[in-house]
Amino acid sequence: MRSILILNGPNLNLLGTRQPEVYGRETLEMAEAACVAHARAQGLEAVCLQSNHEGVLLDAIHAARGTHSGIILNAGAHTHTSIALMDALFSVEIPAVEVHLSNIHAREEFRHRSFISRAVIGQICGFGTQGYLFAIDALAKHFEREAEPE
Amino acid sequence: MRSILILNGPNLNLLGTRQPEVYGRETLEMAEAACVAHARAQGLEAVCLQSNHEGVLLDAIHAARGTHSGIILNAGAHTHTSIALMDALFSVEIPAVEVHLSNIHAREEFRHRSFISRAVIGQICGFGTQGYLFAIDALAKHFEREAEPE
Amino acid sequence: MRSILILNGPNLNLLGTRQPEVYGRETLEMAEAACVAHARAQGLEAVCLQSNHEGVLLDAIHAARGTHSGIILNAGAHTHTSIALMDALFSVEIPAVEVHLSNIHAREEFRHRSFISRAVIGQICGFGTQGYLFAIDALAKHFEREAEPE
Amino acid sequence: MRSILILNGPNLNLLGTRQPEVYGRETLEMAEAACVAHARAQGLEAVCLQSNHEGVLLDAIHAARGTHSGIILNAGAHTHTSIALMDALFSVEIPAVEVHLSNIHAREEFRHRSFISRAVIGQICGFGTQGYLFAIDALAKHFEREAEPE
Amino acid sequence: MRSILILNGPNLNLLGTRQPEVYGRETLEMAEAACVAHARAQGLEAVCLQSNHEGVLLDAIHAARGTHSGIILNAGAHTHTSIALMDALFSVEIPAVEVHLSNIHAREEFRHRSFISRAVIGQICGFGTQGYLFAIDALAKHFEREAEPE
Amino acid sequence: MRSILILNGPNLNLLGTRQPEVYGRETLEMAEAACVAHARAQGLEAVCLQSNHEGVLLDAIHAARGTHSGIILNAGAHTHTSIALMDALFSVEIPAVEVHLSNIHAREEFRHRSFISRAVIGQICGFGTQGYLFAIDALAKHFEREAEPE
Amino acid sequence: MRSILILNGPNLNLLGTRQPEVYGRETLEMAEAACVAHARAQGLEAVCLQSNHEGVLLDAIHAARGTHSGIILNAGAHTHTSIALMDALFSVEIPAVEVHLSNIHAREEFRHRSFISRAVIGQICGFGTQGYLFAIDALAKHFEREAEPE
Amino acid sequence: MRSILILNGPNLNLLGTRQPEVYGRETLEMAEAACVAHARAQGLEAVCLQSNHEGVLLDAIHAARGTHSGIILNAGAHTHTSIALMDALFSVEIPAVEVHLSNIHAREEFRHRSFISRAVIGQICGFGTQGYLFAIDALAKHFEREAEPE
Amino acid sequence: MRSILILNGPNLNLLGTRQPEVYGRETLEMAEAACVAHARAQGLEAVCLQSNHEGVLLDAIHAARGTHSGIILNAGAHTHTSIALMDALFSVEIPAVEVHLSNIHAREEFRHRSFISRAVIGQICGFGTQGYLFAIDALAKHFEREAEPE
Amino acid sequence: MRSILILNGPNLNLLGTRQPEVYGRETLEMAEAACVAHARAQGLEAVCLQSNHEGVLLDAIHAARGTHSGIILNAGAHTHTSIALMDALFSVEIPAVEVHLSNIHAREEFRHRSFISRAVIGQICGFGTQGYLFAIDALAKHFEREAEPE
Amino acid sequence: MRSILILNGPNLNLLGTRQPEVYGRETLEMAEAACVAHARAQGLEAVCLQSNHEGVLLDAIHAARGTHSGIILNAGAHTHTSIALMDALFSVEIPAVEVHLSNIHAREEFRHRSFISRAVIGQICGFGTQGYLFAIDALAKHFEREAEPE
Amino acid sequence: MRSILILNGPNLNLLGTRQPEVYGRETLEMAEAACVAHARAQGLEAVCLQSNHEGVLLDAIHAARGTHSGIILNAGAHTHTSIALMDALFSVEIPAVEVHLSNIHAREEFRHRSFISRAVIGQICGFGTQGYLFAIDALAKHFEREAEPE
Repeated sequence: MRSILILNGPNLNLLGTRQPEVYGRETLEMAEAACVAHARAQGLEAVCLQSNHEGVLLDAIHAARGTHSGIILNAGAHTHTSIALMDALFSVEIPAVEVHLSNIHAREEFRHRSFISRAVIGQICGFGTQGYLFAIDALAKHFEREAEPE
Repeated sequence: MRSILILNGPNLNLLGTRQPEVYGRETLEMAEAACVAHARAQGLEAVCLQSNHEGVLLDAIHAARGTHSGIILNAGAHTHTSIALMDALFSVEIPAVEVHLSNIHAREEFRHRSFISRAVIGQICGFGTQGYLFAIDALAKHFEREAEPE
Repeated sequence: MRSILILNGPNLNLLGTRQPEVYGRETLEMAEAACVAHARAQGLEAVCLQSNHEGVLLDAIHAARGTHSGIILNAGAHTHTSIALMDALFSVEIPAVEVHLSNIHAREEFRHRSFISRAVIGQICGFGTQGYLFAIDALAKHFEREAEPE
Repeated sequence: MRSILILNGPNLNLLGTRQPEVYGRETLEMAEAACVAHARAQGLEAVCLQSNHEGVLLDAIHAARGTHSGIILNAGAHTHTSIALMDALFSVEIPAVEVHLSNIHAREEFRHRSFISRAVIGQICGFGTQGYLFAIDALAKHFEREAEPE
Repeated sequence: MRSILILNGPNLNLLGTRQPEVYGRETLEMAEAACVAHARAQGLEAVCLQSNHEGVLLDAIHAARGTHSGIILNAGAHTHTSIALMDALFSVEIPAVEVHLSNIHAREEFRHRSFISRAVIGQICGFGTQGYLFAIDALAKHFEREAEPE
Repeated sequence: MRSILILNGPNLNLLGTRQPEVYGRETLEMAEAACVAHARAQGLEAVCLQSNHEGVLLDAIHAARGTHSGIILNAGAHTHTSIALMDALFSVEIPAVEVHLSNIHAREEFRHRSFISRAVIGQICGFGTQGYLFAIDALAKHFEREAEPE
Repeated sequence: MRSILILNGPNLNLLGTRQPEVYGRETLEMAEAACVAHARAQGLEAVCLQSNHEGVLLDAIHAARGTHSGIILNAGAHTHTSIALMDALFSVEIPAVEVHLSNIHAREEFRHRSFISRAVIGQICGFGTQGYLFAIDALAKHFEREAEPE
Repeated sequence: MRSILILNGPNLNLLGTRQPEVYGRETLEMAEAACVAHARAQGLEAVCLQSNHEGVLLDAIHAARGTHSGIILNAGAHTHTSIALMDALFSVEIPAVEVHLSNIHAREEFRHRSFISRAVIGQICGFGTQGYLFAIDALAKHFEREAEPE
Repeated sequence: MRSILILNGPNLNLLGTRQPEVYGRETLEMAEAACVAHARAQGLEAVCLQSNHEGVLLDAIHAARGTHSGIILNAGAHTHTSIALMDALFSVEIPAVEVHLSNIHAREEFRHRSFISRAVIGQICGFGTQGYLFAIDALAKHFEREAEPE
Repeated sequence: MRSILILNGPNLNLLGTRQPEVYGRETLEMAEAACVAHARAQGLEAVCLQSNHEGVLLDAIHAARGTHSGIILNAGAHTHTSIALMDALFSVEIPAVEVHLSNIHAREEFRHRSFISRAVIGQICGFGTQGYLFAIDALAKHFEREAEPE
Repeated sequence: MRSILILNGPNLNLLGTRQPEVYGRETLEMAEAACVAHARAQGLEAVCLQSNHEGVLLDAIHAARGTHSGIILNAGAHTHTSIALMDALFSVEIPAVEVHLSNIHAREEFRHRSFISRAVIGQICGFGTQGYLFAIDALAKHFEREAEPE
Repeated sequence: MRSILILNGPNLNLLGTRQPEVYGRETLEMAEAACVAHARAQGLEAVCLQSNHEGVLLDAIHAARGTHSGIILNAGAHTHTSIALMDALFSVEIPAVEVHLSNIHAREEFRHRSFISRAVIGQICGFGTQGYLFAIDALAKHFEREAEPE
């Protein structure tokens, strides 16, 4: 059974309590539980981690090698500034999907640039926590394609 | 039964024949058929249109008022240059989702900017034609939320 | 009797129905009728055309040679991106006036640049459909000055 | 009887004597007289002031509160650099129209930016002193609309 | 017998009548006839198309697959703004040559950038309609080299 | 009794020992003691925390909800790069004041930009540790105004 | 008894009447009276001057030499554009403090740059007229430190 | 006898007292006297004016028409920001020379740009008050050349 | 018999030995011989010079006055940086054509700018050494047109 | 015996396993052992630390005061974004050398900027782990020079 | 007797023959002779050198050490691009003056930047060959001041 | 016995005499002698050349093919501007190392960009002439690795 690491970065622990008009009312715990259930329905295990510490996120990506077959990363504000997270994704060579709850491209200019997006299969933004479910589906499809004989 | 308009812009008619290493081997017709089926499974009608003419896309968005409840737009290269398409989406006030087959944020610098993204609920890129299906799901969820009593 | 071509570009067909708080409630048909009447009062014929297709606008500008003595152009979103429309105006060498319903200089940064403005006598923006009437007056005055002996 | 303040900024006192190929041969006095007459014909009083001193223009805008119902401002070269004039217009909350004799958008790059335009109803440029008359008409129409019952 | 598609974009239909001091007095029809003759002399067929509609140019490039062995493109003002035309050339994988009548690099700054040039063998500009003949020769040489055993 | 959280970011633990010609000779402990005393004199409790770890600062801001009525933040070098700290302040919706010991606007260009300043009431810089006392006074005044009947 | 010059630039005479939601309801006269009282309580004289004329502000800074021991400057919109005021402060070599009523760093981009800030001890912004009192305290502390034996 | 107007802008009244290591110890009065004497030796009258008010400088340039045959302008900090002074020089069409005491090109980046320099014969900077004498010589030579038969 | 100077700049002596996948396998000597032959066939003499020294290229352009009727310049890397070569071409007023072996517009960003192109009739790039032959033809046509009676 | 602190930042723990074609196959442990041996051969102690946490690196630099005589820092991706690390090096005033395994100047544009390099003696990049040995030699030479009598 | 080196860079040998409407009709030889005479009248020797080779100019500046007391440099087009010439002037520590025949600040944007001007006492431009005489006078004055007892 | 070419560019002949506080007191001859000795100790021959002429440096790089196995290049000020030197290094395909005596990344902004660094193995800067010795070691190691069986 393949496993997926779902990583959430700074301030995402506040989900459901912070600016609900932008990010929705569902808490991170609820969203993570929904991810675990959605993954299981597709025969995948989902392991979730949130941290406000960039270093913890980096350590987790490194530790994913040999443990997880895919990564879903919502790096929060680090999306726009962290070259280190991008490098970590490139280094571990695990297929990854970038998720944002809000539509970052319709917000402030400095939120339009993403270092993360250079190191992922694709990006999903603007659909709240539904985005994580799409990301799980995208990884499931990715694993399926990899398993196909050429 | 709600209807969704699925619009594809310039060069997307070449899907499946053009640079398949970037865009995959599925043709636009196959992708559209998959969309129609996926929408129907969710109780939605999907109507598909592709054009290399920006004006045709604009006319179609205008005509969607009163006909379609949602728009899925892959504006191709017009994504990065067409203020007119953005204005059209703002004008008709129909919820829209932006889809790109490739991960535009990992390609040339000039493909990182999207005028379309300012006028949509969210953006999905990098997952090939699977992205259209996510977009249908996202609109379905959006209609559901609108239908909920506050 | 001199004739003026009044050209409106993408999305202007939605006038009166689209974001009325920005653009007013008068429809394009009403505005065009007012232009025809206002022109006639000054001994001028006004011919009106709207299209969402840049190519149609270009063809119309070309066809104006030998037919129309002046052009009033509200190129909508093409104002900010179309070098082709600017070149067309320079080529046909017909005096032209640029009109915008809203004050484009008080809106988003990307609406401040106008290629059209390089090829016209002057620009009028922010006065809704009254701007077309000013443009007719400006062309009338322009024709008058041309008719004066040096 | 409503009153309009017509303000002209630096170098506009030279009108009619300075670079007539760009700005025309009519003097400022002649233009101001035409404005007064045109305003009166619409039941409006026009008071005219020109100064090369930014501070005098600022004082005049401040003094307009309670005295004038509209402002027509041709700030000359200050258009492109004076945040103070913009702030003054925002502060006094009197409807204003920006006028330029030449088509500033077809001249040097540094003349394309206008701070003034952020604080006005609209902008008219390129029609010589006829622009002031359009501005009077625009304010007259504006007063009329304000006077209408909602 | 190999065939070449010679595409001309917006405003080029005005050739010979528009700003002859910049673009020369030869009409597009004359230039196209010269191209056909020059191509034939080299054992090549030349098919010519001009349109002010970007969509028509895109459709023509798409249709060239399986029909034409080379494309000569003078995209006019679209050169500087159309990512769609660049993508179309990349997609059809037909060797192409970019031609401009005037020396675009000696004109306004915004004419120095060409999206087209990223997708072509080479660029020829500044030699009026003679440039098309050079482009035909360049394609002839290109076909010759391809035909050579490695 | 209201409580204020005084947060200091990277390198501020070196205060008094590091480049004293720029930052003064008072240590952070001395400055914190002065803050506690100054706050108490105004009927406020001050709790102080310094960390070189951005994640610790983020956690502290999150934990301030329900505990502290105001935040004083000197984010040090993170001022110029941390979107995460800005987002945290916006999320917890606690009134905050930004302090810098040196006049950051008179130093290197890259120190002129502050993400923090978008999420605070105001900024004080250049007055050494006296700035913290001004910030306490500003928050005290802010609480007072909030307590006033409208 | 040391004296402080408190200078206010363009539009600040409107304080209390202009956009009170941004700048508060206290008038400039009230703020100046509060400054005089606050200064006196610290054994300092405060002399206040406001002008919309940059030249008057420059003359006043020059005249401060030999008369005033400190300057508090709120240059209003000139903050962002006046190199002359910066040069004047550098020339007279009187310690100065920059004050802004609103948090300029949280407003439009063009308000983030301050020429004044290069020539002052420090900057205080966002605290309304309380900022002037902080500035007086900062100068008082500055005089105290200067008076200390090394 | 031809007359020259020597205009000095903001802060130049402080000459000799302000940052003498940059600008020298000679006062403006001494420099003006030297100019008058140097001009007289060449059969020219020199009239000197200094003001910190941009408006006064503009008025003086306007008044120079019909009175002075040449202008020497050291606009101080206005050099880098005043489009109005540039326009004034262009308008009065009197030959002018730009002088700076210090080498502005070796100072801060924002002092490298001069609007004044677009409207003058030439620029002299870095030679202290000797620069005014060179400017007088340059105008003398200019008058001489104008007086020559072609 | 008219003569043409064919100038090649830095690194072009390596032609045929350097990165042949980009620049082809033909040596400079072979290319020069082909140019001489092609020119002779059109009744023109071709004189060839290559140097890695910008000064030698400048001297050669100067010496061309009175000797050569046309210049073909491939300035290599100096294309993008040498204002001196551009000035030299402008000074000698000999018609010139710019050639590049590779398509510089499809390479690194810093190769897109050409100072040379401002001073030439036209630019040819991307066709290897065939470009020199086109340039000879273009000059031949240019001489022909000059020889025609107006 | 002098001691050197060798600090490695984010992702460098992956050395030898990550993108070996860019960074080589030697692990960090092997490289650190080689550093210790190389330092000892020069009579220096080398202490090594790696962390993915910027805060840990900052703490280590602070702790180096009084313990280490030199610092060798490979800040990984933090090189390009961390002002805090630069400030820490400036603060502790310990001579430091910057090392990068790959040639950062030949990689993506955003890797060309280094904040670290402003606070170090010199930079070595592109030589894999050999760069650390050069850095040790450079510090050894630096200590030697400091020990020399002036 | 002190000696001055007068250096002229690329294309200045064409003086008097090249674009005389911009640069005048006097040849370089005539200008150099005038310099020698003007210098001698002030008790100075002037040695003149022109080269189109940057390396020759660099060698000459190096050789000036111990031979010449001052340098007058008109680096022509190298002014805007040569960091090497700037470094050479800084290295030899001989007082230098920068001269340009035309007013470079009123020409193309790329001629506004001068690397030379960072390493000279001052800059003179726009006065044709008279500028060299001013430069000689400026150096004479400079030598005089150096000779004065402090 | 392998040979290394050590190339020094403009102004480096002044080493030891020029700004010794930045570049040290050792002359170029002394540094070259140290290089020759250091190379010999590693079984390598070192040949040294310095020139202020870019063309001489280019010729030397070209001539290195077949003669030298490695190049050490300190291009001085040409580092930041010479695309030709970069192209030459790419063309000859000889492994090269870039050296700078000073830490160019801690100096003026325009010294941060290096064209050379794109074409070399690595860069060493800030260690004075010791940098050449590191470069020799790096090439020695490079040759060693090349000699190893895969």
